[in-house]
Amino acid sequence: MEFTVSQVAEVLRGTTEGDATQKIDRLAKIEEAQPGSLSFLANLKYEPHLYTTGASAVIVSRDLVLRQPVTAALIRVDDPYSSFTTLLEFYQQATRTGRRGVEEPAFLGAGSEVGEGHYRGAFSYVGENCKIGRDVLIFPHAYIGDRCRIGDGTIIYAGAKLYPDTVVGARCVIHAGAVLGSDGFGFAPQPDGSYRPIPQIGNVVLEDNVSIGANTTIDCATMGSTVIREGAKIDNLVQLAHNVEVGRHTVIASQTGISGSTKIGDFCVLAGQTGIAGHLTLANRTTVTAQSGVGKSIKEEGVFLQGAPAFNLRDSLRAQAVFRHLPDLERRLSVLERANPKPEKS
Amino acid sequence: MEFTVSQVAEVLRGTTEGDATQKIDRLAKIEEAQPGSLSFLANLKYEPHLYTTGASAVIVSRDLVLRQPVTAALIRVDDPYSSFTTLLEFYQQATRTGRRGVEEPAFLGAGSEVGEGHYRGAFSYVGENCKIGRDVLIFPHAYIGDRCRIGDGTIIYAGAKLYPDTVVGARCVIHAGAVLGSDGFGFAPQPDGSYRPIPQIGNVVLEDNVSIGANTTIDCATMGSTVIREGAKIDNLVQLAHNVEVGRHTVIASQTGISGSTKIGDFCVLAGQTGIAGHLTLANRTTVTAQSGVGKSIKEEGVFLQGAPAFNLRDSLRAQAVFRHLPDLERRLSVLERANPKPEKS
Amino acid sequence: MEFTVSQVAEVLRGTTEGDATQKIDRLAKIEEAQPGSLSFLANLKYEPHLYTTGASAVIVSRDLVLRQPVTAALIRVDDPYSSFTTLLEFYQQATRTGRRGVEEPAFLGAGSEVGEGHYRGAFSYVGENCKIGRDVLIFPHAYIGDRCRIGDGTIIYAGAKLYPDTVVGARCVIHAGAVLGSDGFGFAPQPDGSYRPIPQIGNVVLEDNVSIGANTTIDCATMGSTVIREGAKIDNLVQLAHNVEVGRHTVIASQTGISGSTKIGDFCVLAGQTGIAGHLTLANRTTVTAQSGVGKSIKEEGVFLQGAPAFNLRDSLRAQAVFRHLPDLERRLSVLERANPKPEKS
Repeated sequence: MEFTVSQVAEVLRGTTEGDATQKIDRLAKIEEAQPGSLSFLANLKYEPHLYTTGASAVIVSRDLVLRQPVTAALIRVDDPYSSFTTLLEFYQQATRTGRRGVEEPAFLGAGSEVGEGHYRGAFSYVGENCKIGRDVLIFPHAYIGDRCRIGDGTIIYAGAKLYPDTVVGARCVIHAGAVLGSDGFGFAPQPDGSYRPIPQIGNVVLEDNVSIGANTTIDCATMGSTVIREGAKIDNLVQLAHNVEVGRHTVIASQTGISGSTKIGDFCVLAGQTGIAGHLTLANRTTVTAQSGVGKSIKEEGVFLQGAPAFNLRDSLRAQAVFRHLPDLERRLSVLERANPKPEKS
Repeated sequence: MEFTVSQVAEVLRGTTEGDATQKIDRLAKIEEAQPGSLSFLANLKYEPHLYTTGASAVIVSRDLVLRQPVTAALIRVDDPYSSFTTLLEFYQQATRTGRRGVEEPAFLGAGSEVGEGHYRGAFSYVGENCKIGRDVLIFPHAYIGDRCRIGDGTIIYAGAKLYPDTVVGARCVIHAGAVLGSDGFGFAPQPDGSYRPIPQIGNVVLEDNVSIGANTTIDCATMGSTVIREGAKIDNLVQLAHNVEVGRHTVIASQTGISGSTKIGDFCVLAGQTGIAGHLTLANRTTVTAQSGVGKSIKEEGVFLQGAPAFNLRDSLRAQAVFRHLPDLERRLSVLERANPKPEKS
Repeated sequence: MEFTVSQVAEVLRGTTEGDATQKIDRLAKIEEAQPGSLSFLANLKYEPHLYTTGASAVIVSRDLVLRQPVTAALIRVDDPYSSFTTLLEFYQQATRTGRRGVEEPAFLGAGSEVGEGHYRGAFSYVGENCKIGRDVLIFPHAYIGDRCRIGDGTIIYAGAKLYPDTVVGARCVIHAGAVLGSDGFGFAPQPDGSYRPIPQIGNVVLEDNVSIGANTTIDCATMGSTVIREGAKIDNLVQLAHNVEVGRHTVIASQTGISGSTKIGDFCVLAGQTGIAGHLTLANRTTVTAQSGVGKSIKEEGVFLQGAPAFNLRDSLRAQAVFRHLPDLERRLSVLERANPKPEKS
C-alpha cells in the first residue's frame, strides 16, 4: 500500500507543510524512520529527532513551533499520538484483518450459523450446531468444534483450536495455535499404581474482549467451566488448567502456568514464567514478579509477590540481596567461631 | 441432549424416588448444581448439600437414610461414584468422541491402511504407508506423516502432528497441537563458531495408554527412539528432548522440560515447570516438586526432590525457611561482630 | 528402504570385507545395533564394541587393524564419521524431506510465486503476493500469510504458522506448530483499569540458516522487526517477544522466554527454561545456565550467568552451596549468641 502525504492528512483532518505529494508506504518510530516512512512526534523529549529523521513525513501537533529547518513533510493535527494510533489500527486492519468472505475449501457443519461480515479461511473447520456472531474472522486451519458459541467481532487466527462446547465472547482475539478446551489433567490412581482418566466434561468460557496468545493452552473444566473474565489478556505459551478462573482485566505474561481450580482476581498482573499452585485464590490487584512460584492464597488486595516460593516483594528482595553474599556471611561466622571457644554441651 | 430421570435410572439399574419425569441435560457437582442438573452423593461428608442442592436429581446409595426432606429426585444405586463415572464417560463420548466416518476433504496417502470404526475429520492428513488400527479417531487438521503406526482406540485431537515413522500404541490420547517427532536439538559446533545440524533420524514411540497434553513437544531420537512407556501421562506444553525415556505410569505436569537422553523411571511424578538436565537417570517412584531443577541422577527409589538445584524435600524446605529471614540472620551476625573485637590475622 | 552392504560401499567409495550381500535397512549406534543395522566406528574408544556389535555392517577407517575376529561386514573408508554423516543426511532426506510437487487440495493466493523444486503438502496455505524461493518444502497445514518472503531451500514443517509479512531467509528450518508474527503483548492501561490493545504492525525476520523449534512462538515487532540473525538455533516452546533481536549463531534451548525489545548478542548460549527481562542487551558470547533469570544488561563479552536473579556463575555456585546448609548456619549462629551476652543498645 502506498499513499501520498496529502491523502493521509485528509484522513486525519490535518494540514500539511512541505512536499505533500511524497509517497509513504510504512509507519516507523521517528528515530528509526527511513525514506518512505511516516512517523509522529507526540512527546517533546523526542523533538531533536524531528530535525534529523529520515522519515518522509511526520505527524506533529498544530501548536509545535519549529526551532530548526525540517526536511520531512509535516502533517499538523490536534493530537499526534491519537492520530498515529488511528493509522496503526487502520494499517493492522488493512494488512491482517481486512479479509472477508469464504475461501474454499472451508468446512461448515450441519446446523451451524455464521453471522454477516465474516471471513472463513481455506481449511478452516466449524463443527455442528455452532453459533457464530457477526464480523467474526476465522483464519485458515482454525478448528471450532461442535456447539461452540462465538461473539461478534472476534478474531480466531490460523490453527487455533476450540474443543466442542467452547464459549467465546465478543471482540476476543485468539492467536495462532492456541488450544481451548483440551482435557483437564485428571487421573484417578489405581491400586496397581496405574492411572485411570477422569472424564473431563466441562468447557472453557471466555467473556468479552479477552486476548489469548499463540500456542497457549486452556483446559476445560472437569465439570462446569474454566472461565476467563472480561478484558483479561493472556500472553503466549501460558497454561491454564481445569476449572481455573482468571478475573477481569487481569494480565498474564508468557509461559506462566496456573494449576487446577485456582481463582485469580481482577486487575492482577502475573509476570512471565510464573507458577501458581492449585486450589488457591489470589485477591484483586495481586502482582507476581517473573519466575515466581505462588503456593498460598493471597487474601489482601494489592500485594506484590516475588520468589519461589513467593513472599512479599520487599522482603524477597532483601533476602535475595543477602543470598548473593552468603559465602561472605559464612566466612564472617567462621571468624567469630574461631574467636569464641566452643561452649560445653548443656 | 436431554433425558428423563427415569431413563437415566434404567441405564444405571437404579430405583427412583420423587419426580422421575423431570428432564436433565447436564452433570454437575452437588454443591454447584442448578435445575436441569444430575448430581451424585458418594462421600457422606457432602450429605448436607443433598438437602439444599439445586440439582433436579441426585444419584445416591441404596442404603442412604434421609435425615431431612429432599426436593431433588433420587436415583438409588449400589455405588453412586462408579455410576456417576459411567455417566461422565458416556457424556464425554456423546459430546466429543462419538463421531465416526470420514469428513471430506481428508487426505489418505498411498499404501496406508485404516482399521474399522474410525473417524477422519476434514483436513486431516495421513501420509503414505501408515498402519492405523481399529476405532482410531483422527480429528481435523491432525497430521500423520509417512509410515506411522497407530494402535486400536487411540484418539488424535485437532492439529496434533506426528512426524514420519512415529509409533503410537493402543488407547492413547494425543491432545490438540501436540508435536511428536520434531528434530532433536543437536548441532555440531564448527571452527568459525557456527553450528551444523546433526541429522536426527530416530523416531518417537508411545506405548499403550499414554496421554499427551496440548501443544506438548516430543523430539525424535538422534538414532533409535524417544520412548514414552505404558500408561505415562504427560500434561500440556511439556518438552521431551531427543532420546528421552519416560517410564511406565509416570506423570509429568505442565511446562516441565526434560533434556536429551535422560531416563525417567516408572511411577515417577514430576510437578509443573520442572526441569531435568540431560543424560540423567531418575529411579522409579521419584517425586519432583514444582519449578525444581534436577541436575544429578537419582539412584535410590522413592526420593522426594525440591529446589533449583533440587535436593531432598525435607532439607530443601528447611533451607527455604531460613532463606526467608536471611536479612535477620545477617543482622544477628553483625550484632555479634560488634560485640567481638576482630581477631588478629594469624 | 533396504540396501545391500555393497551398494552402500559404492556410494561411499569404500571397500568391503565380509558378506557384502547382506541387507541393511537402518542406521544405529555401534553399541545398540541389531541385525539389519549399519553402524560406524570413528572414535577408537568404542573399538571393543566392534567385536561384539549386532550390526550387520560397520563403517571403519581404511587404516584400522583388527585385533579380534569380526562378524559384521566392514566398509572401509577414509573418514568413517564423515561417511556416516553423509548417510544420515541421505536417510533424513529419503524419509522426511525428499517429497516434491503439490498434494491437492493446497491453497495458493493470488499474486504468489513459488520457485522450482518445491513441495506443497495437502491443506497447506500460501496467502497472496508471497515470494517463495526454490526447493522450499511446505508441509501439510502450514500457514503462510500474505506478502511473506521465503528463501531457497527452507523447510516449513506441518502446521507452522507465519503471519502476514514474515520474512524467512534461505536454508531455514521451521518445525511443526511454530508461530511467527503473532501480536506483541502490548496493551495501554486505561483509566478504568482495563487495557486497550496497541496495534502491532511490525513483522518477524529470520536471516539465513536459522532453525526454529516445534511450537515456539515469535511475536512481531510493534513497529519494525523482531529479528533472528544468521545461523541462530532456537529450540522448542521458546517465547521471543516483540522487537527482540537474537544474534548470529546464538543457541536458545527449550522453554526459554525473552521479553520485549531485548537484544541477545552473537554466539550466546541460553540454556533451557531461562528468562530474560525486557529492554536488556546481552553481549556476545554470554552463556546463561538453565532456569536462570536475567534482569540486567551484560556489557562484558564471554560472561557465564546463573541463578534467578542471575549473577556470575562462580559466585552463584558458591552461594548455592551455602544455601543448602543454611539451617546449619543458623544453628551455628545461635550457639554463638548463647555464648555471647546480648550487648546493651547504644
